[in-house]
Amino acid sequence: MGIVTITTDFGIIDPYVGVMKGVMLSIDPGLTIVDITNEIEPQNIMQAAYAISASFEYFPKGAVHLCVVDPGVGSERMPIIVEAGGHYFVGPDNGVFTEAIRKHGDAVFRRITNSEKTLTRISSTFHGRDIFAPVAARLARGELAESFGPVIESISMLDLPWETRPSPNTLVGEVIYIDRFGNVVTNLTRSLIEKVRSESGDKSVTILIGEESIEDILPYYSAAYDEDALNAVYGSWDTLEIFLKNGDAALLHGIEIGDDVEARFF
Amino acid sequence: MGIVTITTDFGIIDPYVGVMKGVMLSIDPGLTIVDITNEIEPQNIMQAAYAISASFEYFPKGAVHLCVVDPGVGSERMPIIVEAGGHYFVGPDNGVFTEAIRKHGDAVFRRITNSEKTLTRISSTFHGRDIFAPVAARLARGELAESFGPVIESISMLDLPWETRPSPNTLVGEVIYIDRFGNVVTNLTRSLIEKVRSESGDKSVTILIGEESIEDILPYYSAAYDEDALNAVYGSWDTLEIFLKNGDAALLHGIEIGDDVEARFF
Amino acid sequence: MGIVTITTDFGIIDPYVGVMKGVMLSIDPGLTIVDITNEIEPQNIMQAAYAISASFEYFPKGAVHLCVVDPGVGSERMPIIVEAGGHYFVGPDNGVFTEAIRKHGDAVFRRITNSEKTLTRISSTFHGRDIFAPVAARLARGELAESFGPVIESISMLDLPWETRPSPNTLVGEVIYIDRFGNVVTNLTRSLIEKVRSESGDKSVTILIGEESIEDILPYYSAAYDEDALNAVYGSWDTLEIFLKNGDAALLHGIEIGDDVEARFF
Repeated sequence: MGIVTITTDFGIIDPYVGVMKGVMLSIDPGLTIVDITNEIEPQNIMQAAYAISASFEYFPKGAVHLCVVDPGVGSERMPIIVEAGGHYFVGPDNGVFTEAIRKHGDAVFRRITNSEKTLTRISSTFHGRDIFAPVAARLARGELAESFGPVIESISMLDLPWETRPSPNTLVGEVIYIDRFGNVVTNLTRSLIEKVRSESGDKSVTILIGEESIEDILPYYSAAYDEDALNAVYGSWDTLEIFLKNGDAALLHGIEIGDDVEARFF
Repeated sequence: MGIVTITTDFGIIDPYVGVMKGVMLSIDPGLTIVDITNEIEPQNIMQAAYAISASFEYFPKGAVHLCVVDPGVGSERMPIIVEAGGHYFVGPDNGVFTEAIRKHGDAVFRRITNSEKTLTRISSTFHGRDIFAPVAARLARGELAESFGPVIESISMLDLPWETRPSPNTLVGEVIYIDRFGNVVTNLTRSLIEKVRSESGDKSVTILIGEESIEDILPYYSAAYDEDALNAVYGSWDTLEIFLKNGDAALLHGIEIGDDVEARFF
Repeated sequence: MGIVTITTDFGIIDPYVGVMKGVMLSIDPGLTIVDITNEIEPQNIMQAAYAISASFEYFPKGAVHLCVVDPGVGSERMPIIVEAGGHYFVGPDNGVFTEAIRKHGDAVFRRITNSEKTLTRISSTFHGRDIFAPVAARLARGELAESFGPVIESISMLDLPWETRPSPNTLVGEVIYIDRFGNVVTNLTRSLIEKVRSESGDKSVTILIGEESIEDILPYYSAAYDEDALNAVYGSWDTLEIFLKNGDAALLHGIEIGDDVEARFF
């Protein structure tokens, strides 16, 4: 009952993803294959890192998370397997698993070197088909990680943003993701905000983003009253999220990934 | 061999749908999960109602049709299960199953109250993941409907359009759906049109939409002669459909959902 | 363990593809169904022909490749089954399997005539649901090809471009596909180019497209140096491909399907 998830920037028009599924089903027709998304912006490794990080823990342990966002295909960047917390990740060594690895202390990295695990002929342009899909399928069907190649010390990691606390009563984070509804996801977690709030003496919180300020954090989206003003909520991954009631917060308020978000307690 | 279908407004860029599939496969890795569409316009409950209504009867009985178009997520609206004609529906109580329920006389409604059937932690923003996906997976694998919560008297229903017959020789219906080809689907069924035609003495039919009139109903799309004029056909769900040969009827003739469509027999 | 792949122009908003999957799972709930793409441009048979040709050989033999790009639905065009090299193809007789058939010498064509293999009621607008999906499901689960209808002599074939060799040192091909990255796929194969190069005395190659010329064929995408100049590589199907480093070659250089591409050896 092997499971493989797929995250790519291949889009849904071209047959690339279908081809990868064919390769995997040729190895094990009993696999269950799930698309996380194939609509990562071309070559946007950070977006892919968040998509994988947001999803992998909801799959059973043993599932293999395949990511092919691979600007360096054909060059010397390594093909790798990461094992963390019982979950497996397969893809190019370009940092795309950074955020997933952050969530687990026990990650093991391997370089894929065993050519019996890949297609016989390796193109220089489509390692998703020739290397990553066959390796993911074999891992998912239970072939042992050690049979694919040796453990390596380290892999490439993205420089993802961390929050800062410039004063005892202030937290500064960053916009890390904007979804299709225009909801603005930040890297400020509920547990951190509530800890700082508590250390500040349970003061009320104001959220600052761009020129705007938001008083308090609502319990759910439809608790918002005003359709024109920004609101805050703890979102689906328990991080601070900025939204508009029935509107696209990012578009209408010009918010972009990388923008600062500040939480002040006073 | 449980089957779950998914209809959402989550889009295909964000990882939300993949996360719901992970939750379901964690409950039963043998499930078959089919996307009906994840491209419902944000919060367009009526569009979702038609997508579900158009598809559910083509799946085997026992299949579970999961719908998450849920503007009220986190508020007091109920999570529900509907059973109708051997088919199951899971989602928020906002009318999204209206059109499917209309097709069956025997619908039973339940409020989901059993917290052992959902994820342990319920967010206020993503009940698709926390409530609806686990309930759908458990229903599809055969857990009994009565174990999820009590029967309730009534649920929210949409005010979907009915056709009218303002004179013996006239039927008035409405545009209810426009597809990617620009084909215009109405709520006038073949059986109703043929019944009124027969009662009118088998007269010929003229279809009126906007400023235009269409003489007769063609047997199939490519029977249309003129590429510039609107044509009519009985479409895939045996309702009157307006189309352009090799063109987008809705776009080029300014037709929108909710527009009146008249059939006159004379 | 039957496998069906799907290639259509139905898009991902409307429920049409979900309906076809329901029909197939009602015949055999154990089927594995894989979307190649549902985003073929409306009625673009040539694009569908290339999508199928690029993917089918990566699936196990016995898999059924269902294509519904069908401008003539409801008219007299035949519904057909093609068997080639152990792979099966199901769809309308409009040439959509031309490129796949070219790859195998042993294709057998059948007209689908057995009404016990289709849905009972055949609409005039949705043969994907009423004829092709049930036939594909039955073939995939192992029902014998001969039970669907008689062998026929010939089917419609597209007039797909062939390369020419106007002089001993010159090959002329054509742009046949442009992918989401703007990479430009041609019909000049590596084996043909290398054969002509060898016959020309192992001279160096220049690629000409539009007003531009490209010196040499790179080993992989990221070997390109200049972000503004076009480059060439052997792509994923071992044909000559034109690309821009980190850019959309087709868009930025105005390249379209059908444009000539010349390889000169001197």
